[in-house]
Amino acid sequence: METRTIDIHEALETRNEEAALKLRLLFERANVLVINIMSSPGAGKTALLARTLKELSENVRMGVIVGDVATDNDARRLQHTDTPVVQIVTHGYCHLEASMILKALEGIRLEEIDVLFLENVGNLVCPACFDLGEDLRIVMLSVTEGEDKPLKYPTAFQRADAVIVSKMDLAEAVEFDRAAALENIAAVAFHAPILETSARATEGLSSWYTFIQERLCSRRGGPCD
Amino acid sequence: METRTIDIHEALETRNEEAALKLRLLFERANVLVINIMSSPGAGKTALLARTLKELSENVRMGVIVGDVATDNDARRLQHTDTPVVQIVTHGYCHLEASMILKALEGIRLEEIDVLFLENVGNLVCPACFDLGEDLRIVMLSVTEGEDKPLKYPTAFQRADAVIVSKMDLAEAVEFDRAAALENIAAVAFHAPILETSARATEGLSSWYTFIQERLCSRRGGPCD
Repeated sequence: METRTIDIHEALETRNEEAALKLRLLFERANVLVINIMSSPGAGKTALLARTLKELSENVRMGVIVGDVATDNDARRLQHTDTPVVQIVTHGYCHLEASMILKALEGIRLEEIDVLFLENVGNLVCPACFDLGEDLRIVMLSVTEGEDKPLKYPTAFQRADAVIVSKMDLAEAVEFDRAAALENIAAVAFHAPILETSARATEGLSSWYTFIQERLCSRRGGPCD
Repeated sequence: METRTIDIHEALETRNEEAALKLRLLFERANVLVINIMSSPGAGKTALLARTLKELSENVRMGVIVGDVATDNDARRLQHTDTPVVQIVTHGYCHLEASMILKALEGIRLEEIDVLFLENVGNLVCPACFDLGEDLRIVMLSVTEGEDKPLKYPTAFQRADAVIVSKMDLAEAVEFDRAAALENIAAVAFHAPILETSARATEGLSSWYTFIQERLCSRRGGPCD
């Protein structure tokens, strides 16, 4: 049983790695910072991006590729700015793969953007195993999901370059145990900075914007303020 | 790309169907009602079951098999009653399969229970494709996840025998649009009764208990009150 599972995953991952390498070369050539965002369904990936596109677009030129099992709801939610947004509908497939991103790039001019967000399918398990040629992997955990999720879904968190704790405005209502959550994140993703955010609160996203701008600057060889 | 995906799914599903058939025969022989519960991570499957085990055990003899990618946290949360609880750790696998249930049944005497709950891995995509020999599939959607999830993850909802809307005590705090959510559920799962619950509120679970008892009665050939 387990052997079969590993075989299938390995075959998929090998094919994916070839396409991810192509992506990495394209992103390198265009000098674009690529951020792969993963979470459970409804953790707030699209809400975060919607605000980010609105509030950061004066300083940073962005693009978004968004993956969903069905519907183009998310792309429509993001299409109120000038930012190019491409929707991938996976038709039942539980994660984004590098080959899907290669195809979606037909709709985005990399030379005209600084940062490309890849909003993955809402799923804390499968997306973690598929390299999309990204520079950074962000895992988002909403306060409503429970403090133990980093321990229960370790692969996504182990490979994260930052962890966003979202919906902090609801922390009190759901009796969120912040200390326990931070401890669990640190136990699995000890290297990753933790950004506490709220896409509904006024001041919720400044640490996230700073994070993006610093990483963009360091990708492009600084100096960074 | 799509062809390959379908091939792998078909191979997995064919193997699974054979094991699911064995399960169905075992459940039939023991006259046990089997309920497969699916949701996103953190929607409240374990909280619902913890209260159900406590409050329904005078009338119904229950058992639980719970699946997680890692940790036995959920089994430990459920082990405060006399109910037999078996934890399956899938080690990265994104859903439960029938063969895993067959193995887990070594830890449960079917002849001593009326209802067996299968708490699936927290994932709205993959578990929907794998028959576990169950009588009923329940999909749980928490109010914090957003009203559009039935449209975005249609397979799980299309195959559901009932939809539980959980965390209703948070509906106001998250500005839950109940009418939109019910409309979206009905659009995909028009046949499924909708149970609005809260595992934190005092009166939150009576419709769920009635549902279980009615289905148990009708499985055993009634008469049901």
